[in-house]
Amino acid sequence: MQRILILGGGGMIGQKLAWHLAGEGLNGDRDLDVTLHDLGYPEPSAPGRKRIGNVAVAGTMTAAVAEKPDVIFHLASVVSGEAEQDYDKGWAVNMHPMWELLEALRAHQAADPGYCPKVIFSSSIAVFGAPYPEAIGDTFLSAPLSSYGAQKAVCELMLSDASRKGFVDGISIRLPTVCVRPGKPNKAASGFFSGIIREPLNGKEAVLPVDDSVRHWLASPRSAVGFLVHAAGLDSARLEGRRALNMPGFSCTIAEQIEALRRAAGEDAVKLIRREPDEAIINIVKNWPRNFQTDRALALGFTAESDFDEIIRVYIEDERPGC
Amino acid sequence: MQRILILGGGGMIGQKLAWHLAGEGLNGDRDLDVTLHDLGYPEPSAPGRKRIGNVAVAGTMTAAVAEKPDVIFHLASVVSGEAEQDYDKGWAVNMHPMWELLEALRAHQAADPGYCPKVIFSSSIAVFGAPYPEAIGDTFLSAPLSSYGAQKAVCELMLSDASRKGFVDGISIRLPTVCVRPGKPNKAASGFFSGIIREPLNGKEAVLPVDDSVRHWLASPRSAVGFLVHAAGLDSARLEGRRALNMPGFSCTIAEQIEALRRAAGEDAVKLIRREPDEAIINIVKNWPRNFQTDRALALGFTAESDFDEIIRVYIEDERPGC
Repeated sequence: MQRILILGGGGMIGQKLAWHLAGEGLNGDRDLDVTLHDLGYPEPSAPGRKRIGNVAVAGTMTAAVAEKPDVIFHLASVVSGEAEQDYDKGWAVNMHPMWELLEALRAHQAADPGYCPKVIFSSSIAVFGAPYPEAIGDTFLSAPLSSYGAQKAVCELMLSDASRKGFVDGISIRLPTVCVRPGKPNKAASGFFSGIIREPLNGKEAVLPVDDSVRHWLASPRSAVGFLVHAAGLDSARLEGRRALNMPGFSCTIAEQIEALRRAAGEDAVKLIRREPDEAIINIVKNWPRNFQTDRALALGFTAESDFDEIIRVYIEDERPGC
Repeated sequence: MQRILILGGGGMIGQKLAWHLAGEGLNGDRDLDVTLHDLGYPEPSAPGRKRIGNVAVAGTMTAAVAEKPDVIFHLASVVSGEAEQDYDKGWAVNMHPMWELLEALRAHQAADPGYCPKVIFSSSIAVFGAPYPEAIGDTFLSAPLSSYGAQKAVCELMLSDASRKGFVDGISIRLPTVCVRPGKPNKAASGFFSGIIREPLNGKEAVLPVDDSVRHWLASPRSAVGFLVHAAGLDSARLEGRRALNMPGFSCTIAEQIEALRRAAGEDAVKLIRREPDEAIINIVKNWPRNFQTDRALALGFTAESDFDEIIRVYIEDERPGC
């Protein structure tokens, strides 16, 4: 039996991952003992033992891994917009707990030398900062222009070094912007990429704070879960010491998103998008990556959608099965 | 009057920097109040107020900046070999104090909004890891293969984010391997690059633990001090948000170093080099960068030596003026 811990298990991706594990197991293994850890959970929640805790509080990470999980998905994080507004909170939640986590796991190994858990960390393309080449390749520097990106990049480095030393077997998955996110808007500056599709599909108005020409790198929530699951099954020797991976996705503009919405739901849906430029969001988004060439991830078997029509289909299948 | 603080002021570079400030000032400004901070100092030591403290002890960094220095050179570090042998000590000295330093400076700014010190951090080309392109350019990823490199890369990210937020005005200087180091060998795995020149020039035997074909990226101690001083004078707006810079140097093989030694000191000196392969050092060194293309640093006015004969001349001028 594999013990699985999902840190941030109450969040959108954490819940979808837990549903996936309950339905399909982990890469074919259905003999799982799943624990979720978060500040709280939605109702109804995905199956699994639920623990409540704030990873920013010292001691929480140590307690969370007391039962020596075999696989740890570390998704616990405050989102980009919040990390930018609240510097203290961003570093306290998004960075320092990674150090405590790695130290706690190292202490377990010191007592039990056979213990070396898989640690799958949800990083982000926010580790990159402008200016960019036409497409960001696998050897492009991480020079983040947000606190969120800096925190993710720091965690990647800590996880890689602890892995190189053999304390854990880690991999950092740099997620594209996840779209279409279900549920309510959150404080992520990227929220509108989902909002302009989700809200109109549900008959509601959505605000578009940036220009139609903005280009971005996207993948569906289903793909994001797929990345994490695939990472847990990878032989990390194949990573050859470079344990932070850019994930596949596809590059599209807001205008292309809107055309796909028109094809899926017609002109009435498109009319629900209200243009309301927001300088703060425009300034964050202008520094975001637009396009990637993810050769390494593709060679390692990671897959994602290839157009926005498919992203909308995935949203409708997964979130609105009655439609 | 500018208040200058040199963290790691008792080390080789710290001492040379302090001598430089005493002799020439800081980019023309001779009205300086210089404080050195370290575990201890050589005798005789460079001029300046001397403070004793261990930055790995919580509270030390906060106390060290209590007088709100205008310029902070942060050189305090354990070397690569020691950081690799002692994981705890490496992270405790090379990483965590940077966080405390930045928090202490941010607290000063909160009380005195006009305060925004220059922070010049001595990073290293150890932030890079193999495989490499023919020459490492300014947008190549940081994927360190040593704890030392990971610690330096983490500090760079923290310093960049605190600078982006306006709490400090930071720059990370990725030093080449500094050669020829004066004094006794230290625990740096790179020590032999200096040892095979310094020891024979002083009539002593030196051990060469790697093959003659090993190629590396070098600059003199005088250049290293020059980089730090130049960085302190740079308008950081010119960095355009990318505050970690690869420094100029030059790429040469061990064989080329030995030929330059032969030209400078003759065959008798060369005969003092004893070949004694060391697998541990061979394995560390094989992952080190060999060559760079440092366009950004050159455009920003950083300069270094251009051949190894010049490096030997600098060593003789600076360390053995009687010869």
